[in-house]
Amino acid sequence: MRERLVVIGGDATGMSAASQARRLRGPEELEILAFERGSFASYSACGIPYWVGGVVEERDALIARSPEEHRARDIDLRMRTEVVEIDPAGSRIRVRTLDSGAEEWTSYDKLVIATGARPVRPPVPGINAPGVHGVQTLDDGQALLDSLAATEGRRAVVVGAGYIGVEMAEALVQRDYEVTVLNRAAQPMATLDPDMGQQVGEAMTAMGIAMVNDAAVTEIRTDDAGRVRAVATADAEYPADVVVLGTGVRPETTLAEAAGLPLGDQGGLLTDLAMRVRGHENIWAGGDCVEVLDLVLGRERHIALGTHANKHGQVIGTNVGGGYATFPGVVGTAVSKVCDLEIARTGLREKEARAAGLRFVPVTVESTSRAGYYPGAGSMRVKMLAERRTGRLLGVQIVGREGAAKRVDIAAVALTAQMTVEQMTALDLGYAPPFSPVWDPVLVAARKAAVAVRETAGR
Amino acid sequence: MRERLVVIGGDATGMSAASQARRLRGPEELEILAFERGSFASYSACGIPYWVGGVVEERDALIARSPEEHRARDIDLRMRTEVVEIDPAGSRIRVRTLDSGAEEWTSYDKLVIATGARPVRPPVPGINAPGVHGVQTLDDGQALLDSLAATEGRRAVVVGAGYIGVEMAEALVQRDYEVTVLNRAAQPMATLDPDMGQQVGEAMTAMGIAMVNDAAVTEIRTDDAGRVRAVATADAEYPADVVVLGTGVRPETTLAEAAGLPLGDQGGLLTDLAMRVRGHENIWAGGDCVEVLDLVLGRERHIALGTHANKHGQVIGTNVGGGYATFPGVVGTAVSKVCDLEIARTGLREKEARAAGLRFVPVTVESTSRAGYYPGAGSMRVKMLAERRTGRLLGVQIVGREGAAKRVDIAAVALTAQMTVEQMTALDLGYAPPFSPVWDPVLVAARKAAVAVRETAGR
Repeated sequence: MRERLVVIGGDATGMSAASQARRLRGPEELEILAFERGSFASYSACGIPYWVGGVVEERDALIARSPEEHRARDIDLRMRTEVVEIDPAGSRIRVRTLDSGAEEWTSYDKLVIATGARPVRPPVPGINAPGVHGVQTLDDGQALLDSLAATEGRRAVVVGAGYIGVEMAEALVQRDYEVTVLNRAAQPMATLDPDMGQQVGEAMTAMGIAMVNDAAVTEIRTDDAGRVRAVATADAEYPADVVVLGTGVRPETTLAEAAGLPLGDQGGLLTDLAMRVRGHENIWAGGDCVEVLDLVLGRERHIALGTHANKHGQVIGTNVGGGYATFPGVVGTAVSKVCDLEIARTGLREKEARAAGLRFVPVTVESTSRAGYYPGAGSMRVKMLAERRTGRLLGVQIVGREGAAKRVDIAAVALTAQMTVEQMTALDLGYAPPFSPVWDPVLVAARKAAVAVRETAGR
Repeated sequence: MRERLVVIGGDATGMSAASQARRLRGPEELEILAFERGSFASYSACGIPYWVGGVVEERDALIARSPEEHRARDIDLRMRTEVVEIDPAGSRIRVRTLDSGAEEWTSYDKLVIATGARPVRPPVPGINAPGVHGVQTLDDGQALLDSLAATEGRRAVVVGAGYIGVEMAEALVQRDYEVTVLNRAAQPMATLDPDMGQQVGEAMTAMGIAMVNDAAVTEIRTDDAGRVRAVATADAEYPADVVVLGTGVRPETTLAEAAGLPLGDQGGLLTDLAMRVRGHENIWAGGDCVEVLDLVLGRERHIALGTHANKHGQVIGTNVGGGYATFPGVVGTAVSKVCDLEIARTGLREKEARAAGLRFVPVTVESTSRAGYYPGAGSMRVKMLAERRTGRLLGVQIVGREGAAKRVDIAAVALTAQMTVEQMTALDLGYAPPFSPVWDPVLVAARKAAVAVRETAGR
C-alpha cells in the first residue's frame, strides 16, 4: 500500500524532510507531494542580507536545490501553490493554485507542516506602503532589490536592531546607502545583555550607521504617489527612500491554529521530541513554525534559525521514512557579524535567567583571539553567567574581532553537557599562538566565573 | 611560622605556580624561591617558531613577565642557577650558580618540580656539531638566530615533521631559506592519521618545502672547521648550512629519577589529581616533566604543551597556597598551522584507539568553513572516530583553511563530556553564512559517524 506524504512549505524543513524521507523510502512505497506558495524553494533565507549587500552576487547561489532537482528525485514539488486549510479529522488539505485561483482537496497519510515564520509588521499607518520591505523570503529579497534599483534616493531606514536589522544595515551600507537604524530598545541586539549590545552599537556607529535607540516607529509617511518618504517616531522624522523591517518574526501557524493543532505560549506548534505534533499521530512540524525545548531554560520557546530548521527536517524525514530520530532541543546559540565585529551568544542572558527564577553571577573578561604577541590578535569581550550554588554554566556572550563568533560553540557544547564553570576551567581547548592565547578567552571567563561562584557560596 | 616554597624551573608551570601561591599567601607567610638554569623565565616557548620566522619581531615579546617583575612581587627568582639534586628525605635541594660554579644546599617546606622537557637528539655522529639547533628554550631560539645571522648559506634541513618541525620549516621559508624536511614516517604530523597527515605534506610541498618521508637521519656531516655541512640518510645526503631538530621531547626528569620519585611509562613524573607527586606530601610537579591522565584513553601519557603547563601551574599554586584545585586530565587537543593550512586533532587517532583495544568506525567528510555561497569559504576535511556499539566519540582530526583549527574545540568539549556521535548531531552550534554552512562540518562528520555506528550495530 503506497502512502502519501504531504509537505506544506518548500524551504529548509519541508524539503529536508522530503529528501530524507525519499532516501529511506522509494517512490513505489511513498508518494511525496510538497506545496510552496512562493516562487522559490530550498533556499538559504539567512543568505538574503549578503545577497542584498552584494557580497553574494547571484540570487541562485542561495538556492540549494532547484524544484527540477527535487522532481528528478520523485518529490512532486508544486510552486506558487498555497495550502489554505488543514483538516486533520479527514486527513486532507485544501490547496489553492495561486496563478489560477483553483482549489482542491488532497488527502494525506502523513503530513509535515513547515510553514515557517512571518515577519512582524509594526501596526502603524503606512506600514504596507510601497518601498517598505520585509526580508523573510527570497521573493522579499528580490522585491527589495527591485525597489532599490527603481529608486534614486540613497537614504535607507532600517526598523529594528536584531540580527536581521543589523545585517541589513550593513548590507545597505555596502550598497552605499545612508543608513539610519531605529531601535525600540536602549541598545541594539536585544538577544544580548545591554552591556554587550552597546559594543555592537558602537561598531555600527563607527561604520557610519546612524544608530537611534529608544525609538519606536509611530508612522510610515508617504509621498503623493503613496510611496514611502519618511519614518516617524514620537520625537522625529527620518527621511527614507526605502525602509527595511527587521522587527522580528512570529511562527506562521494560521493554518495550524484554524485546524485546532496545539500551540505554545509564543504561538508556535508544539511537538514531541520526534517532531510529531502533540496528539496527532500522522502530523509532524518543524522549523520556524514550531517552539523548541530550550535545554537551559527547561521550557519551550520560539527560535527561528535555519540551522534548527534543517535539523528538524532531517529528524522528521527520518521518522516519516520509517527510521527513528529525535531533536532533543536547543541551548540558544546564535552568531552574527557587523563588518568585522563578530557577535555570538548561547544559553541565557541576564534577563532570561532572572525571569526563570535563577540566581547567577555574571562576569566579563577582555582577551584576544591570538597570543598577545602574535600579529593580528583581535580583542574579544566574553561575558559568562554561572548559576550560584551549583556553578552550572548558564550562558555566554562574545563580542569581538576575528575568531570571536565560533568560540561560542565551546560554551554551546558545555551547556548541552550541563558543565559547571569550574569544570570548564580544565577544558583541553586548542592552543597555538596564531589561534589563541595560552588561556583561551572562554577559559579566562570560566576561571573568573568559578571564583565568583565560590565567593558567593556562603550566600 | 613562615614556610619556604622552592620552585625548580622558571617557565610556565613554575612561575604560574609561584604567582598563584603568592596571590593566596603573602610574603610574611610564604617565602618563594625559584631557580631557573637558563637566561630567560616566563616565556612562551610555543612562540619561538614565529620569532625565528620573523612574524614576531622582538624576543622580549615572548616574555610574559620579567625576573624583575617577579621579584617585585616577592618571588625570589634566581636566573642561571641550576638545581642539581633533590633530597626528599632531607627536604632540601642542592643548587649550583652556573656563572661561579658555587653550590649550596637549600631547604624547602614545599617543592614544585617544573623542569620541563628536553629535546630528543637522534644518537647519530655529528649531532652536537655547531649549526645543529634544538628550539626548546628561548636560549635555543637565540642561538639559532645567531647561527643564521653568522651563516651565508641558505640551505636549511629540518629533522622531524611533527608540530615543531612543521612550524620551523615554515619559519625558515619565511626567512628565505631553501628548506628540506627529513621525516622518519610515511607522512608528516604523526599526531594525525596518515591520510590526514598527507594533506599537510601536500601543503608543505606546495609552499616550496622539499618534503622527504621515510627518511631516517644516519649522520650529521661536518666541514673542516667542524661545522655542519650536510645531513645524511641511508639513501642520500642533503647539504645543510643549518640544521633544526624537531625530533620531539622527553620529560626532563633526571633529577626526579635520581631522587627516587615515581615515573611513568613515558618517563614523566606521576602525580595525583592535585598535581602532588605520588607518595610525596610536600612535592608537586607539572608541565612538560609530568605525565597527564588522558581521559579518552584512561591512562597517563606525556604531552608537552604550554596550555597544560599553565593550567598545572595554576592548580599547583592554588594547592600550595592553601586552596584546592585539581587537573582532571586532557583529551589530547592540539592545533597548529603551516602557512594558511590549519591542523587540529583531539582524542585518539586510529593507531592509538586500536592499541587501547577499542573497536571504532572512522569517517571522513569534506566541508567548508562558511556557507558555500559566501565568499572566501575554505575547504575543510574532518575525520571522526566513534566507538562501535556505544557510539562514543573517540577522536577528531581537522585539516583545512580558515576556521578549521579551533573547530576542534567542539570535539574537545564533547570528548570531555563523553558524548556519543548521535548526541553530537543535535549540538546547537553557531550558524550564520559568514561562519559556517548550515550544517557545521563537525555536525556533518557526526551525522556520518552516527550512520556508520548504526550500520555496524549488529556486529
